[in-house]
Amino acid sequence: MADFDVNILGCGSALPTTRHMATSQIINLRDKLYMIDCGEGTQLQMRRMRIKFSRLNHIFISHLHGDHCLGLPGLISTFGMLGRTGDLFIYGPKDIGNYLNSINDLFNKNLPFNVVFKSVDTKDHSLIMEDRSLKVYSIPLHHRIPTCGFLFIEKQKEMHLRKDIIDFYQIPIKSLNLIKQGHDFTCENGEVIPNKHLTLPASPAKKYAYCSDTAYYPEIIPLIKNVDLLYHEATFADSDMARAKETFHSTATQAAIIAQKANVKKLIIGHFSARYESELQLKAEADKIFPNTILANEGLILRV
Amino acid sequence: MADFDVNILGCGSALPTTRHMATSQIINLRDKLYMIDCGEGTQLQMRRMRIKFSRLNHIFISHLHGDHCLGLPGLISTFGMLGRTGDLFIYGPKDIGNYLNSINDLFNKNLPFNVVFKSVDTKDHSLIMEDRSLKVYSIPLHHRIPTCGFLFIEKQKEMHLRKDIIDFYQIPIKSLNLIKQGHDFTCENGEVIPNKHLTLPASPAKKYAYCSDTAYYPEIIPLIKNVDLLYHEATFADSDMARAKETFHSTATQAAIIAQKANVKKLIIGHFSARYESELQLKAEADKIFPNTILANEGLILRV
Repeated sequence: MADFDVNILGCGSALPTTRHMATSQIINLRDKLYMIDCGEGTQLQMRRMRIKFSRLNHIFISHLHGDHCLGLPGLISTFGMLGRTGDLFIYGPKDIGNYLNSINDLFNKNLPFNVVFKSVDTKDHSLIMEDRSLKVYSIPLHHRIPTCGFLFIEKQKEMHLRKDIIDFYQIPIKSLNLIKQGHDFTCENGEVIPNKHLTLPASPAKKYAYCSDTAYYPEIIPLIKNVDLLYHEATFADSDMARAKETFHSTATQAAIIAQKANVKKLIIGHFSARYESELQLKAEADKIFPNTILANEGLILRV
Repeated sequence: MADFDVNILGCGSALPTTRHMATSQIINLRDKLYMIDCGEGTQLQMRRMRIKFSRLNHIFISHLHGDHCLGLPGLISTFGMLGRTGDLFIYGPKDIGNYLNSINDLFNKNLPFNVVFKSVDTKDHSLIMEDRSLKVYSIPLHHRIPTCGFLFIEKQKEMHLRKDIIDFYQIPIKSLNLIKQGHDFTCENGEVIPNKHLTLPASPAKKYAYCSDTAYYPEIIPLIKNVDLLYHEATFADSDMARAKETFHSTATQAAIIAQKANVKKLIIGHFSARYESELQLKAEADKIFPNTILANEGLILRV
């Protein structure tokens, strides 16, 4: 079972190439799936990567540019054909809501499930989704149109049981859940075993931040401080800095500066411009500031 | 140079699979390109097949189902990024016009070229496009929503020159075009050489008919009589005849009956349901009625 993984479905930018698909990622948190962005071809990529449609209930869209959302109508339509009944939640800037309305009017009438759109204020860092496993916050970004990133914070996990001690006191299975949640255990003779003797600390809760598309924008640094994994766009190389500025995109160097200043554990870069035959140049530039930067690639699965 | 080829970009039906893409074809007539249908992922498939975006000026859309037109917004957007300036003509049922308006409002403002939509009456067999190389006619089909096929008729080509005779009379190059068009040649001494001595008959003009999506609909037979190549949808096998009827699709057997009754030279079938692991069953069923039926496949290029 996946613990907290990021699956890269596509990491190209707007112009199609044979090397990269348009942007999409799927977070797999203990077999619950959360999609971020949904460029053209995303549903095909899910098939290729054998990702189960049925486990996906939440889709986060960063902004209304085609390479981040043109896969939605086909995906929603496929859900309908597969007989989905559970609500599908879609989060994004309010323009995404208009887009969903118009495509669903044209292509997805009489769906057997509800598409529930939740508008995100792209100027605000706020909690936009919460379930039993995680919280998701918006990250204001700086692009040509309203755009936000997303911060996924795993909830505190249960403590690990000390199997040797559990066996020693012959603690019944029905009591184990309470102990994992922090309760003490009272034996039949009245003796109280403190929780700290029965458990080891839980694995630390992990954080993943997704920041695309955006110009260099240091305002995000406090919001993504110390995350375990940061995805930051790196559309351009240093040599195309002027183009990056003009189009409100980042260079690999700028992505690395953000990662370094935010003290993140790992950086993965993507949203590569079609102009580069290879992204090794981008990696080299990022590595100078944030060593061991990871290049996104279709099919890559990263443990957070 | 391609003479009159059909490129299969996608031949699956609505549900995505790893074996087939959504429907799209490109006709290459002496390096001018004409697209038929544009499912999700079509622009990526063009890249994979190394088909030049710049040579495509006419797109024919059969109907407003996602697997036939969800690739349009991305393709149009890409044309814009590539700096296209020439008009892009799109032909299809009037709903396609509404779709184009809504996606272009959302994604493709300020394009450097015009998208010119020409509405097609799906109940009528009529000339919808004509240029120097070919005429395109609509073919009324029978589907759940207004749908038409397209008949591509190459214009009569020029006659072939008899090089030996041309050399014998030392006919200057500047006169050759007139001769190819049927004119006689007058020598300096006044002798008239009749055209029939100077030329061989032109290659016959070819016809290609595209019929998808449709229930079995014999009304099309007189319209596609004797075509050189017929693409007919064959979503289902005989065993799923009930499902074919219900969804207004055809079986491979029905496609073959249409081909046989229309006396076409070659039949290619496609729009395969995702339920079949292999389409050999569909081919076997079609072959019983129309031997040597061709199975469509991504990347296949067929000479008409």
